[in-house]
Amino acid sequence: MRLISKTFQPLITIPKGAKIKNTDITCKSQKLLLENGLLRPTSSGFFTLLPLARRVLNKLEHIIHQQMDFVGAQRISLPNLTSSKLWETSGRLNAIGPELIKVEDRHGKKYLLAPTHEEAISELLADVGPVSHKQLPLLVYQISNKYRDEHRPKHGLLRSREFSMLDAYSLHQDHDTAAITYDRFTDAYRHIFDKLDLPVYRVEAPTGDMGGTISHEWQLTAAAGEDAIKLCSSCSHTELADGNSQCSQCGKETKQINSIEVGHTFILGTKYSESLKANFVESHGTQVPLTMACYGIGITRLLAASLEALSSETAMRWPRAIAPYSAIVIGPKEGSKEWAHHDFEKVLEVSIRISEAGLEDDVVVDDRHALTIGKRMMMADRMGYPYIIVCGRSTLESPSRYELYQTHLQQSKPQLLTLSELITAITDSRGEEKISVRG
Amino acid sequence: MRLISKTFQPLITIPKGAKIKNTDITCKSQKLLLENGLLRPTSSGFFTLLPLARRVLNKLEHIIHQQMDFVGAQRISLPNLTSSKLWETSGRLNAIGPELIKVEDRHGKKYLLAPTHEEAISELLADVGPVSHKQLPLLVYQISNKYRDEHRPKHGLLRSREFSMLDAYSLHQDHDTAAITYDRFTDAYRHIFDKLDLPVYRVEAPTGDMGGTISHEWQLTAAAGEDAIKLCSSCSHTELADGNSQCSQCGKETKQINSIEVGHTFILGTKYSESLKANFVESHGTQVPLTMACYGIGITRLLAASLEALSSETAMRWPRAIAPYSAIVIGPKEGSKEWAHHDFEKVLEVSIRISEAGLEDDVVVDDRHALTIGKRMMMADRMGYPYIIVCGRSTLESPSRYELYQTHLQQSKPQLLTLSELITAITDSRGEEKISVRG
Repeated sequence: MRLISKTFQPLITIPKGAKIKNTDITCKSQKLLLENGLLRPTSSGFFTLLPLARRVLNKLEHIIHQQMDFVGAQRISLPNLTSSKLWETSGRLNAIGPELIKVEDRHGKKYLLAPTHEEAISELLADVGPVSHKQLPLLVYQISNKYRDEHRPKHGLLRSREFSMLDAYSLHQDHDTAAITYDRFTDAYRHIFDKLDLPVYRVEAPTGDMGGTISHEWQLTAAAGEDAIKLCSSCSHTELADGNSQCSQCGKETKQINSIEVGHTFILGTKYSESLKANFVESHGTQVPLTMACYGIGITRLLAASLEALSSETAMRWPRAIAPYSAIVIGPKEGSKEWAHHDFEKVLEVSIRISEAGLEDDVVVDDRHALTIGKRMMMADRMGYPYIIVCGRSTLESPSRYELYQTHLQQSKPQLLTLSELITAITDSRGEEKISVRG
Repeated sequence: MRLISKTFQPLITIPKGAKIKNTDITCKSQKLLLENGLLRPTSSGFFTLLPLARRVLNKLEHIIHQQMDFVGAQRISLPNLTSSKLWETSGRLNAIGPELIKVEDRHGKKYLLAPTHEEAISELLADVGPVSHKQLPLLVYQISNKYRDEHRPKHGLLRSREFSMLDAYSLHQDHDTAAITYDRFTDAYRHIFDKLDLPVYRVEAPTGDMGGTISHEWQLTAAAGEDAIKLCSSCSHTELADGNSQCSQCGKETKQINSIEVGHTFILGTKYSESLKANFVESHGTQVPLTMACYGIGITRLLAASLEALSSETAMRWPRAIAPYSAIVIGPKEGSKEWAHHDFEKVLEVSIRISEAGLEDDVVVDDRHALTIGKRMMMADRMGYPYIIVCGRSTLESPSRYELYQTHLQQSKPQLLTLSELITAITDSRGEEKISVRG
């Protein structure tokens, strides 16, 4: 059983307007992650993810791996250090410029810490190729740390210099077949955001430095977002805000909402494969440049963006599927009347039963029994654990009853349940969740 | 069901003494990984892991995560880019020198791509500290890419410049309590190598640049190894080879065997915590530098080292727990007599039954039916899949019988089994494996 007393979670209190080492506190997610001991800055734009944040990241990665597997993308690992020459060839060394972090090895050879891998994928395909048209479409992806030397890193994980990202690439014979796979990735993205139960909208976007013919940003609505989208309640069209409040499709008035970009997808055409000579062989034997599409999700950014979308100023709220733990069990204060009746052994028993009811190792016990129940309740609420189970006064009843707080439901009062009712309540509400995700 | 036709596995044949782009082929693992389409070099000392190698890495990581969890180490993620200042403070910036890959950001601030994180961990503890003696021991770990600018990178993944590594750190009140945790990590390491069924020996080693009081290398015996150890058959003592063939413990003659370092563990004492001010508060309130121990396993190196230890010059052999797939199913050649009787649908049925017998998604079907069974058998043998199941001539019998080759058993003839016998054989031999791992 996991114990809070054994969890490395350095809590701090940040006074209003305070400047914490290396970083201004400019947004809610940053403040909450720091105060609750999930994150520490190491220098401007760089962060250490502490155990509870790392658990969230594991869960996010798991959801993404599942969906990549579902679309048939194969996981690979490209080196983070990429030869600068490739970026010269594609023209992006100058186009992106100072945001690229450049590195020279001991022999003076030039590399950069890749922010994305279109060049590397094209070179890989050129190296092993030309592939046959029969091998297409070819879908690959990786999850790795990416680098961008932001001029002024800010907002914690929303705009950091080293960040975790999904980058997927698909390779095709032509634009039409690329479009089919692009739609399948769109579905995978929808599944990911549905699983997180987050309001993420796909909107058409300019292709920018990346180039290509089609591009969509995936925008999560959140008050603190630096972007904005227009939602049309009349025809359901969604688009990037552009100063004009009318819907570009039906002309009706739209509602503008701030948002955070959590993903970006492109049909790139042959921009990279032409310059880097990534070809395939057609059925009649001629070599033709591959058509490429690419798909990104900023994973550490999504973690922070979820908090921006769901949390209050003082309490974190997570998509239920990625909360650091699904449930926390809080036992009585040591020495209290309840403690005499319901000691640590009994608290553990409750925790184990909940684990066995499908939460497995996703249950943690707040075993800091020297603290009052109220104090630990407050901390659990701030952490946003979806189920808070308190062994309080009602454990004195026969049979013992437990308080269940479901932080997502915003009930004013807890449910008072026997152990078996508690198990049923948790199992049932998780069951509903599973069905709604699949729906 | 996974299909070989959909697997990105670019096969090549490397003539003897050939120089492949960016790399000399100097060892078996490098040649086998390249030829069989698991790996591609991108530039000297940098490699792309293709899907089948990535699967092996996933399995290795899973085994390591399990054991880290078992010892109570909490997963974190430190940035790969670490401030150079920390390394100046610890004195290692000069001590390690040219092997450190240095980076300057757009403002001229100096970083390096960390090869290891003692400085970063010490700074983290200083930042959140001083921690209380009650929080000790504190155990954390990460799995991430590390960097070392080898003067002459060689032997493929055995000595690359970007590599995947486990690095774990434990923090203590004093040397005695550190020694207790050090022993527990030693057990965890033994479980990891037992699970892989690899002959890995723990030997005392000099502490070198790392400093500290105690250090052990974890050496895997393999003919191609650049290191060597002495095994004493008389008293079972094992030590690094040192030019003297006698056992340092009992004086008897030892046997010297080449080996590859796959892990290294240290009790570091207070070297880093003193210079970086990582303290804890004793029960009577005084601040004292933390005692640190650290634990590394080169994960991509271990992948290659396993191949060095187990493979022949032409055929890969893996620890059974990390083969890219546990089983491959080979159907008849299209148009053959067997094909008429046992078509793709039936091949799939066999594969699904095997999956359901506990192998789950760890079964692949070689659906390249235009190729002969013999050709596909040869490729499967080269890949070293532990179970090769062939739907050959005996599928014409009633009931159909299947050929089972267990590549680890070096049987000259396959077992001829009905489907239910096949399932039993696989289930039984996996059962034994599980028991032996636990023993």
